[in-house]
Amino acid sequence: MKKVYLLCCFLVTVILANDSAGLLQLAQKNHLEPIPKSKLELLKLVENPKSVLTQEKIELGKMLFFDPRLSKSNLISCNTCHNLGMGGVDGISHAIGHKWAVNPLLLNSPTVYNAVFAFSQLWNGKSSDLADQARGPVHADFEMASSAQEIEEKLKKIQGYKKYFQQAYGSDVKINFDLVVDAIAAFEATLVTPSRFDEFLLGNINALNENEKEGLRIFIEKRCAACHKGVGLGGAMKVFRHDRYTYSDLGDFRGNDNKLVKVPTLRNITQTAPYFHNGAVWNLKDAIYEMAKVQLNIKISSHEADRLVDFLKTLDGKKPQIQYPMLPY
Amino acid sequence: MKKVYLLCCFLVTVILANDSAGLLQLAQKNHLEPIPKSKLELLKLVENPKSVLTQEKIELGKMLFFDPRLSKSNLISCNTCHNLGMGGVDGISHAIGHKWAVNPLLLNSPTVYNAVFAFSQLWNGKSSDLADQARGPVHADFEMASSAQEIEEKLKKIQGYKKYFQQAYGSDVKINFDLVVDAIAAFEATLVTPSRFDEFLLGNINALNENEKEGLRIFIEKRCAACHKGVGLGGAMKVFRHDRYTYSDLGDFRGNDNKLVKVPTLRNITQTAPYFHNGAVWNLKDAIYEMAKVQLNIKISSHEADRLVDFLKTLDGKKPQIQYPMLPY
Repeated sequence: MKKVYLLCCFLVTVILANDSAGLLQLAQKNHLEPIPKSKLELLKLVENPKSVLTQEKIELGKMLFFDPRLSKSNLISCNTCHNLGMGGVDGISHAIGHKWAVNPLLLNSPTVYNAVFAFSQLWNGKSSDLADQARGPVHADFEMASSAQEIEEKLKKIQGYKKYFQQAYGSDVKINFDLVVDAIAAFEATLVTPSRFDEFLLGNINALNENEKEGLRIFIEKRCAACHKGVGLGGAMKVFRHDRYTYSDLGDFRGNDNKLVKVPTLRNITQTAPYFHNGAVWNLKDAIYEMAKVQLNIKISSHEADRLVDFLKTLDGKKPQIQYPMLPY
Repeated sequence: MKKVYLLCCFLVTVILANDSAGLLQLAQKNHLEPIPKSKLELLKLVENPKSVLTQEKIELGKMLFFDPRLSKSNLISCNTCHNLGMGGVDGISHAIGHKWAVNPLLLNSPTVYNAVFAFSQLWNGKSSDLADQARGPVHADFEMASSAQEIEEKLKKIQGYKKYFQQAYGSDVKINFDLVVDAIAAFEATLVTPSRFDEFLLGNINALNENEKEGLRIFIEKRCAACHKGVGLGGAMKVFRHDRYTYSDLGDFRGNDNKLVKVPTLRNITQTAPYFHNGAVWNLKDAIYEMAKVQLNIKISSHEADRLVDFLKTLDGKKPQIQYPMLPY
């Protein structure tokens, strides 16, 4: 009797292990990719081909990211809307900027964590890379409202910045806005958050529990992974509202007039409510139901949604430690 | 000849040393007090007698200090106006708060660094301590615009905060606004910045150079130190505009209607422009001239002002390293 019991246990273990190994293969086949552990591999993914990633640039970029003097009012920094202590977002539906202006397209601030893994930046995907993206909010009247010239003049007057620009870009550097966004992008490239799901993708099939694995299976089988793929589980393509079928690429998806929107990353999704480009949904389960209906044209049961939430929680990543920068003066 | 030269050198050294030792005594006699090096001595100065200072409270307080969810809009944290990367201030003339409201008394945000050394808080000195002070901006319509009840309800909904409140205040803690401000005050009590001037006050007479010592001597002889005294070089008393002689303690010192104002700290003064309760003056030398005229009724030469600036620069202190908190969710 005892032998039979032990045999059963053994078989269940083998089946589950096989099952998990199969699930891992399935995930890999569906282009769910890990954040590499190897620094060299990671560098290949995050380095801007036009700008070598150095520690000095990253340090300067961190200062600039946190420096509210990049805004016209001297009050709004990149970190105001992309708060690194809050999953890289502001936690409100629509971004608020200069003089309390609400984003005129009613857009929600996307997370800056793992943004480097996206094929393009901004909700409409119109920005080619992180450096280019950084220009947008800095200049926009309703965000930081600063011109390149204003920022260059301000930074040149802050004596303490010179040293850091020199360390990052050479002793004969001329401070200009191109370098500002290049440095910010360098810092942002370090904002990656490996999670338990990466452990799984890298071969540790015990990194997820059974509920989480069930969630992953549903995630693949229901075709969530068709869009939320790649290292970012998102950020690899744009989609449209299936029920509306409007292919317009204007990036004007105000309110219900949904057009083409970049698929956002699901990493740290439990920390980045409210959801969607317009920050309309606060509850993660509700967001899952909405996506199932709108993008996949299916119904998801409450049980399935719970397992999907279990899986999504495994994307909560380890944040890099950030020493708050003492800004030059 | 060589012997005479060496003798002269020796005598000059002795005289200068005596002079410096005398200056040190003079500084001490004029109640210029150092930030103690001994942790125990420091604790005596910074600990709120009503609340033991523990690492857990400090950690919780740091989170709350940086948490914009303490404001009605979820966008403004203590750090917005008291930016720890910018000398503990916002670097603008008049504080801007909820919905971009300008401070109705046109007050400038005072630094939070070394605020613990002040006998009372706020420009009118009406707040007894740091915990009490923290209530003001949180509630004010034109700052963070949150009621105690709103904050309590919000914090109770953020699951992750429970653990930190329990660690700081015991496992049966009930989250309430009194604890919020107590924890913030605990964190703020750690924001002290020892500088070269403290080295000097603690007996190292070589910590200041000759220009800085000349500045210190002027600082004492011209009676700047009569008000800017104590550990904070300020924060020990209130003064009035000498030329107006209005003793009113209403704390309404809008525009030119100057009444009783708390003497601000001079620590890190090079980083906390613009100056005065109304942020009217951007240049430190101009601020010195203004004070000489208004408070001391004297004229200061450009040379004297330069030496005073040299001295004031020795108050640039070493900031505590702050790891940016990952906020609970």
